Amino acid sequence: MYKVFGDMLSGNCYKIKLLMQFIDMPHQWVHVDILANETHTKEFKRMNPNARIPVVELDDGKYLWESNAILNYLAEGTEFLPQEKYERAKVLQWQFFEQYSHEPYIATARYINKYLGLPKEREAEYHAKQAGGHKALTVMEQHLAENRFFLGVNASIADISLYAYTHVAHEGGFDLSEYKNIQRWFKDFESIPGYVKMARENA
Amino acid sequence: MYKVFGDMLSGNCYKIKLLMQFIDMPHQWVHVDILANETHTKEFKRMNPNARIPVVELDDGKYLWESNAILNYLAEGTEFLPQEKYERAKVLQWQFFEQYSHEPYIATARYINKYLGLPKEREAEYHAKQAGGHKALTVMEQHLAENRFFLGVNASIADISLYAYTHVAHEGGFDLSEYKNIQRWFKDFESIPGYVKMARENA
Ligand SMILES: N[C@@H](CCC(=O)N[C@@H](CS)C(=O)NCC(=O)O)C(=O)O
Ligand SMILES: N[C@@H](CCC(=O)N[C@@H](CS)C(=O)NCC(=O)O)C(=O)O
Repeated sequence: MYKVFGDMLSGNCYKIKLLMQFIDMPHQWVHVDILANETHTKEFKRMNPNARIPVVELDDGKYLWESNAILNYLAEGTEFLPQEKYERAKVLQWQFFEQYSHEPYIATARYINKYLGLPKEREAEYHAKQAGGHKALTVMEQHLAENRFFLGVNASIADISLYAYTHVAHEGGFDLSEYKNIQRWFKDFESIPGYVKMARENA
Repeated sequence: MYKVFGDMLSGNCYKIKLLMQFIDMPHQWVHVDILANETHTKEFKRMNPNARIPVVELDDGKYLWESNAILNYLAEGTEFLPQEKYERAKVLQWQFFEQYSHEPYIATARYINKYLGLPKEREAEYHAKQAGGHKALTVMEQHLAENRFFLGVNASIADISLYAYTHVAHEGGFDLSEYKNIQRWFKDFESIPGYVKMARENA
C-alpha cells in the first residue's frame, strides 16, 4: 500500500489525496508538520533531499516527490490522464503553469496569511503576490470560458493541480467573485465522485 | 516542420533547441524579443495566453507552451524519455524541481544581473535569490555524486531542463567552483552528439 507523507492543508499534498479518492486507491497518510521542521530531519531528507512534502513511498520502498510528478505516476492508465500524446502534453503544460505562474503567488500569499498570520516583515511580499496571482486567475478564467475542464469535457490531473490552491485563494487575499467561470468549474470539480474537502480529518 | 518561438539566450528556450539538436529534428526558429514586449501582443497571446516564451507551433497549427511540457512531447519515443513508468515520473520530478526550486532563483538572478544590468531597485531581490539557488545546487551536487546523469547512466530531458540555467549560473552570481560533480556532469552533457552552445547565432 502506498504511503503519503503530507499535510492535508497543503494544496500540494491535498492534490494527492484528491486523486487517490477519485480513483479509489488504498493508501496510508502520514502527517508531516512543516512548521515543526519535520521536513528537515535526516530521515526525511533521505526520502526527499529537497526537504518538502508531499512524498510518496511506493510498494517497493522507492520514493517519489513533487506533487505533479506523483499525480502523473498514479494517474497512468486511469481516466484522469489521457493516452493521446498532445493531450498528455497539455496536462503537463497546465501543471507547469500551476507550479511556475500560479502556486508561487497564490499558495505563498495564503501561507504568509493563514499559516504565519501575516507578520509585519512579510506584508510587502504578501501584497506583491497579488498581481501575479490575478494574472494566473485571468488566464484560467479565460480558458474555462470555453472549456468545462482544462483538457475539455473530462476532468484530468491538470484540474486537480489547479483546483488545490485556487479553491482556497481567498485565504491568500484573492477575491474570486468576478471569476464566474472559475466558480462554475469549482462546482463541476466538486461533483466528481469521491471528492473530499481540504481538512485534516479527511486525511 | 515545427516552429519554435523563443530566444536562444533564455534557458527555457535553449532547452528546446538542445533536444531538437540531440534528436536531429528539423525546425524553424522565430526570435522573440521579450525586452521589447513581443510576448505581450494580441497575436502572441493567441498562441500563449500566459505571454511567455518558448512556444512551439506543431505541424497541424496547434500550440504548446511551458518548456518542460514541450520537451516531454518532443522526446516521446526517443532515448531522451524512458518508457518505464517510475523512470518517467522521475524525469518529471526533476523537471518540477527545476521549475519550482531552481529556475526562480538561478534564472531570475541571472536575468536581473545580465539582462537588466543589476539596477539598484532590484539589488535586494538579487541577493535574496542566492540562498535558494545554492540550496538547489546542493541537491543536484549530491545526486550527481552517485549518478552520471539525473536518471542514471543515460542522459534524459531531465538533464536538458537542469543544464539550461545551471551552466550559466555564474551569470547570476553563483560560484560553481565547489560543485565538482556538477562540473563533471557539464562535461558529460556537453559531449552528447549535436550539443550547441547557448548563443543567438546557433538558433
Ligand atoms: N514543487 C513542490 C512544492 C512542495 C512544497 O513546497 N511543499 C511545502 C508545503 S506546501 C513544504 O514542504 N514546505 C516545507 C519547507 O519549505 O520547509 C511540489 O509540488 O510538491
Ligand atoms: N515556466 C515557463 C517559463 C517561461 C518564461 O518565464 N519565459 C520568459 C523568458 S525566459 C518570458 O517569456 N518572459 C517574458 C515576460 O515575462 O514578459 C517555461 O518553462 O516555459
